Amino acid sequence: MEETFVPFRGIKNDLRGRLSCYKQDWTSGISAGVRILAPTTYIFFASAIPVISFGEQLERETDGVLTAVQTLASTALCGIIHSILGGQPLLILGVAEPTVIMYTFMFNFAKNRPELGSKLFLAWTGWVCMWTAILLFLLAILGACSIINRFTRLAGELFGLLIAMLFMQEAIKGLVGEFRIPERENPNSIEFQPSWRFANGMFALVLSFGLLLTSLRSRKARSWRYGSGSIRGLIADYGVPLMVLIWSAISYIPAGSGSVPKEIPRRLFSPNPWSPGAYENWTVIKDMLNVPVLYIIGAFIPATMIAVLYYFDHSVASQLAQQKEFNLRKPPSFHYDLLLLGFMVIICGLIGIPPANGVIPQSPMHTRSLATLKHQLLRNRLVAAARKCMRNNASLGQVYGSMQEAYQQMQTPLMYQEPSAQGLKELKDSTIQMASSMGNINAPVDETVFDVEKEIDDLLPVEVKEQRLSNLLQAIIVGGCVGAMPFLKKIPTSVLWGYFAFMAVESLPGNQFWERILLLFTAPSRRYKVLVEYHATFVETVPFKTIVAFTIFQTVYLLVCFGITWIPIAGVLFPLMIMLLVPVRQYILPKFFKGAHLQDLDAAEYEEAPALPFNLVTERELSRTASFADGGEILDGVITRSRGEIKHVCSPKVTSSTATPSKEFRSIRSPQFSDKIYSPRLSELKLGLSPRHGGPMTGEAKPSNLGKSG
Amino acid sequence: MEETFVPFRGIKNDLRGRLSCYKQDWTSGISAGVRILAPTTYIFFASAIPVISFGEQLERETDGVLTAVQTLASTALCGIIHSILGGQPLLILGVAEPTVIMYTFMFNFAKNRPELGSKLFLAWTGWVCMWTAILLFLLAILGACSIINRFTRLAGELFGLLIAMLFMQEAIKGLVGEFRIPERENPNSIEFQPSWRFANGMFALVLSFGLLLTSLRSRKARSWRYGSGSIRGLIADYGVPLMVLIWSAISYIPAGSGSVPKEIPRRLFSPNPWSPGAYENWTVIKDMLNVPVLYIIGAFIPATMIAVLYYFDHSVASQLAQQKEFNLRKPPSFHYDLLLLGFMVIICGLIGIPPANGVIPQSPMHTRSLATLKHQLLRNRLVAAARKCMRNNASLGQVYGSMQEAYQQMQTPLMYQEPSAQGLKELKDSTIQMASSMGNINAPVDETVFDVEKEIDDLLPVEVKEQRLSNLLQAIIVGGCVGAMPFLKKIPTSVLWGYFAFMAVESLPGNQFWERILLLFTAPSRRYKVLVEYHATFVETVPFKTIVAFTIFQTVYLLVCFGITWIPIAGVLFPLMIMLLVPVRQYILPKFFKGAHLQDLDAAEYEEAPALPFNLVTERELSRTASFADGGEILDGVITRSRGEIKHVCSPKVTSSTATPSKEFRSIRSPQFSDKIYSPRLSELKLGLSPRHGGPMTGEAKPSNLGKSG
Repeated sequence: MEETFVPFRGIKNDLRGRLSCYKQDWTSGISAGVRILAPTTYIFFASAIPVISFGEQLERETDGVLTAVQTLASTALCGIIHSILGGQPLLILGVAEPTVIMYTFMFNFAKNRPELGSKLFLAWTGWVCMWTAILLFLLAILGACSIINRFTRLAGELFGLLIAMLFMQEAIKGLVGEFRIPERENPNSIEFQPSWRFANGMFALVLSFGLLLTSLRSRKARSWRYGSGSIRGLIADYGVPLMVLIWSAISYIPAGSGSVPKEIPRRLFSPNPWSPGAYENWTVIKDMLNVPVLYIIGAFIPATMIAVLYYFDHSVASQLAQQKEFNLRKPPSFHYDLLLLGFMVIICGLIGIPPANGVIPQSPMHTRSLATLKHQLLRNRLVAAARKCMRNNASLGQVYGSMQEAYQQMQTPLMYQEPSAQGLKELKDSTIQMASSMGNINAPVDETVFDVEKEIDDLLPVEVKEQRLSNLLQAIIVGGCVGAMPFLKKIPTSVLWGYFAFMAVESLPGNQFWERILLLFTAPSRRYKVLVEYHATFVETVPFKTIVAFTIFQTVYLLVCFGITWIPIAGVLFPLMIMLLVPVRQYILPKFFKGAHLQDLDAAEYEEAPALPFNLVTERELSRTASFADGGEILDGVITRSRGEIKHVCSPKVTSSTATPSKEFRSIRSPQFSDKIYSPRLSELKLGLSPRHGGPMTGEAKPSNLGKSG
Repeated sequence: MEETFVPFRGIKNDLRGRLSCYKQDWTSGISAGVRILAPTTYIFFASAIPVISFGEQLERETDGVLTAVQTLASTALCGIIHSILGGQPLLILGVAEPTVIMYTFMFNFAKNRPELGSKLFLAWTGWVCMWTAILLFLLAILGACSIINRFTRLAGELFGLLIAMLFMQEAIKGLVGEFRIPERENPNSIEFQPSWRFANGMFALVLSFGLLLTSLRSRKARSWRYGSGSIRGLIADYGVPLMVLIWSAISYIPAGSGSVPKEIPRRLFSPNPWSPGAYENWTVIKDMLNVPVLYIIGAFIPATMIAVLYYFDHSVASQLAQQKEFNLRKPPSFHYDLLLLGFMVIICGLIGIPPANGVIPQSPMHTRSLATLKHQLLRNRLVAAARKCMRNNASLGQVYGSMQEAYQQMQTPLMYQEPSAQGLKELKDSTIQMASSMGNINAPVDETVFDVEKEIDDLLPVEVKEQRLSNLLQAIIVGGCVGAMPFLKKIPTSVLWGYFAFMAVESLPGNQFWERILLLFTAPSRRYKVLVEYHATFVETVPFKTIVAFTIFQTVYLLVCFGITWIPIAGVLFPLMIMLLVPVRQYILPKFFKGAHLQDLDAAEYEEAPALPFNLVTERELSRTASFADGGEILDGVITRSRGEIKHVCSPKVTSSTATPSKEFRSIRSPQFSDKIYSPRLSELKLGLSPRHGGPMTGEAKPSNLGKSG
């Protein structure tokens, strides 16, 4: 993206880009048919469950002024608006933990002022929202998002890990709380006797670990040996909601025995939206003029914090949802989305609900689930084309020809898309290579010599079903949750804690920072596995000591950020700490680390090609060769794991996709680099995956090979 | 083994064979040094924990006449005797569940007879033991064990799975019991209030699943990425006892909080051996003449059942500990061991403790752990030799030469051993093959081109450290447990249940019957994975329908056997059901299944080469080529998984090692067979392993390849 601060230019560019594919955003979603429900439900759960839980937290902190009803309503409303009017439909909106922290702080401030009190609290937050929106407008108009490239992986991954830590902290705090008496409850109730409390806590352990372990396992169902492919696919797609259902059902077993009080295990607590009082705060707008002028002006102070937070959070969530290895075809829309967020903040402020913004890890989870969907669709079409062709005694060359044709038909004709020759050329190259290894390209083939499904998985590049439907549908279902509150209240809180832990664990793979932390604990003799597993080339190009130093710096910084969130009021400053990483990365780190090493550990595009415009053609050209997949099961794991670390050898240029604009610099700067190349064949990618799952190392690609195959 | 019924011939053969290597049995064990403690502790826990638990069960059933003190004493005594005087030192002895069932039945019979009562119960069982011993002597002398070959895999694996089911049943019953009031306890105690009972049950779930999951994981520690190799090895070797310790420690956490009664969780209950009354029954011998003559004669009836049970159980446990793929070097000793068992039964009977016999799954577990040990020893020696050679700028050929020399030095010079040329030839062949693929065999090599540790893992055949020391030591430690009872009583019963489940799960891999059951649930498109994973060639050679029919027959038979153990008194007949499998397999199954298919599903040597003497040379020659290993981590998994299903291509003959004596029949009978061969290279074995651990399929060896590589 161009770093330009000419007013409105960023917004105009975003609008132009997204409008050109707006219609296709809808037709593409609808054409996916019923399959769109898999990513939809996956994201709905990932979105709704934390929002409900944050709502509960907010209720405790605000003496019941704000509840899960409000957080759900905000998430649904903003989600619907964004999915229809927003720029980047991959971005998922929700009420996030930082918002909850900010609102808690503001409530504690307001309730002690006689001029405000808890009665005028929401009206005052209305003013805060106004100021926040104005700041967001300014940031959007003045092109603040164009420095998004300066939010390098360093900042993004640190923030991602911080969010994972907050989720995990919530899970642990929740579990510990199951052994204690909740504050608002009557401590003399039977279920708070020591024995029942202990029983409740132990039951909570069983339920939450049960949910966590089964959910993690169900996500890998595609690679199971048992059951038909459709059942495996169904479990992989809907396993997590299914597990929430199953473990909620299990939680009713003890109560059925009669001797266990029905309050065990504890369940979600939230008022029904139709109960009296739940609507009280929906008419905030008429109170807003009752707020004293001094407080209207003072609202500017929390507003700056929230604006900084939202600017960062919204942009980084959007950025993580559009990582390079997803090979997205449609343009980003950072400025326009920030502008729209400003409008949504106003609406939320006026009706007295906490605003929603782009959330991590849900947004990248959304993109990943859509990549799996797109892979299935592409695969089915190509297999059908190849089979049809083979029935007519076609040769291998013809089969590939028909597959290329089918592939081309699946490509969306977009203004932003490169002429599809490039994608086909790659397919063609692989064809010839494969055909020559299999014998005569012109001889007729059948499925005994040519395993269609397998080969297609080898050829298919990673693509994402980019559309608006899944986002809209999930937001609508979140809205439906407000009405379904009586059912939601049947979910045990311990299942929530398990789900929180699941979200934290699910967000780890693909985070290179996390992988480097693990690398510190990896035995020296097995470090090469990291290379094979994640294609983390930095293991080869950067000295281990440098990796250690960089990772320790990052870890300490993360712990400081995490520590700051614990400080009662200053805690709201933690977004500033992460913003601070931008100058730290740009001016301080280069003094301690070599440029080449920083480039490998944290590729920052501004460093070497600051003025290169965001170029989709180059993007795709370079990452197309990194094709890998295995009936979706590889996708689940690989996509984010190999975050931009895939090198390819098919083209004469040697580069890594993270270093896109700097390939010349790079090959000059590191001459040893060119003889350390290897082709990321499917077999290696698969090999690389397996040790992750606890199996023994399966590397054909030994380290010595890596060093001499060129 | 020769099927001969000439009196004493079997015993004489056994004695001759084992005496020739008796000295080496000890020197070899001592030479292993401190490493011998790894298999020792592993088996000690596998042996002691069930024995303690069976002791508790026996105490409940016999009103306290027999306790864990007696079962431990018997296991230790018989273990020590067998490890010193026994034939096959791989066989582990212990008081087993069937013995407990038999003793329960006899106690229920005796306590209702005024002439016996619970006072003369032990004296009466003394007579039962006498008769049992006489029957065992007869069986041993008349060569009954020579029909051991008729106990085919069908019977052995069915019995193994039955034992696993009994273990799992014990675990589940134990866990359910944690929610209930134990019979002998005062139901008015505080810990039996509904709330504490529920809390205890939930805590038990946490502890037992915690132990099960962490133990299973720790056994795979060698393939972990984290920690140094020695730590990983330590965890893999001692992880299970460590987990018992850790989870026992965790069980003390709630009691520390003060509000939880110290009776939660429940712990082992057993009298200390020095408490009054515990010695009462050690003087049974003087009561034996007080038993009425009628009952002395009547004791013959239960004795026949026990003799059949022991004959089968002891022989099958010994057989499973000496499976072919272990490539054992020392001869078996079925007859002599049965004779010795008779003497031990007399001793146990005279001092009033239940006798011990060969146990499953501990015996095969013992062999497997010794194979891991031997692999480590061989590997260390060969790596050292190769490294020393490479420091002198040796060529690849010289390096292999030095490794061969070291390998030869490690071979025990035994009468039974073939001239080691065979083993070396194989090593040499691989050398040349490998060298030619790596370039010039005479050029100096260093570790950058020749990854010593990796290559050696590729070359090493599976071998077992056959010695008596580990068996003796574990028996002595079991004996020490009698004195350590106050410490053992700190283990929560729920940890026991988790351990039972662990034993059941650990016994499954390698059981082809179990693998076939899983195959029934495998999606057709993924069945080839079974082939790659287990080298289960029957998947290719037997029609799927036949596999299904055979497996369903076996499953129904298993369920009938399992059902019989539930019948109160007739339950003791279940060994007869398994004995019945011998004629069923020999006379009835051939009427329903083709001989070739039966041969592949359940190779019975007697069918085609009834008079072939047990020939170690042939054994080894055929299985030597099946070499695979990876620093022990492969061994953990592969050895029993690939049970005899490995085909090799180095020799011109095409055969499978299960079909040893019938290779000619086989290649004639199934001509399509010869073009379905492939070499079981390490890479494939590794690839085959990984999906088991939940990872995606990693097959270089695609099914199409399997069909055309010949």
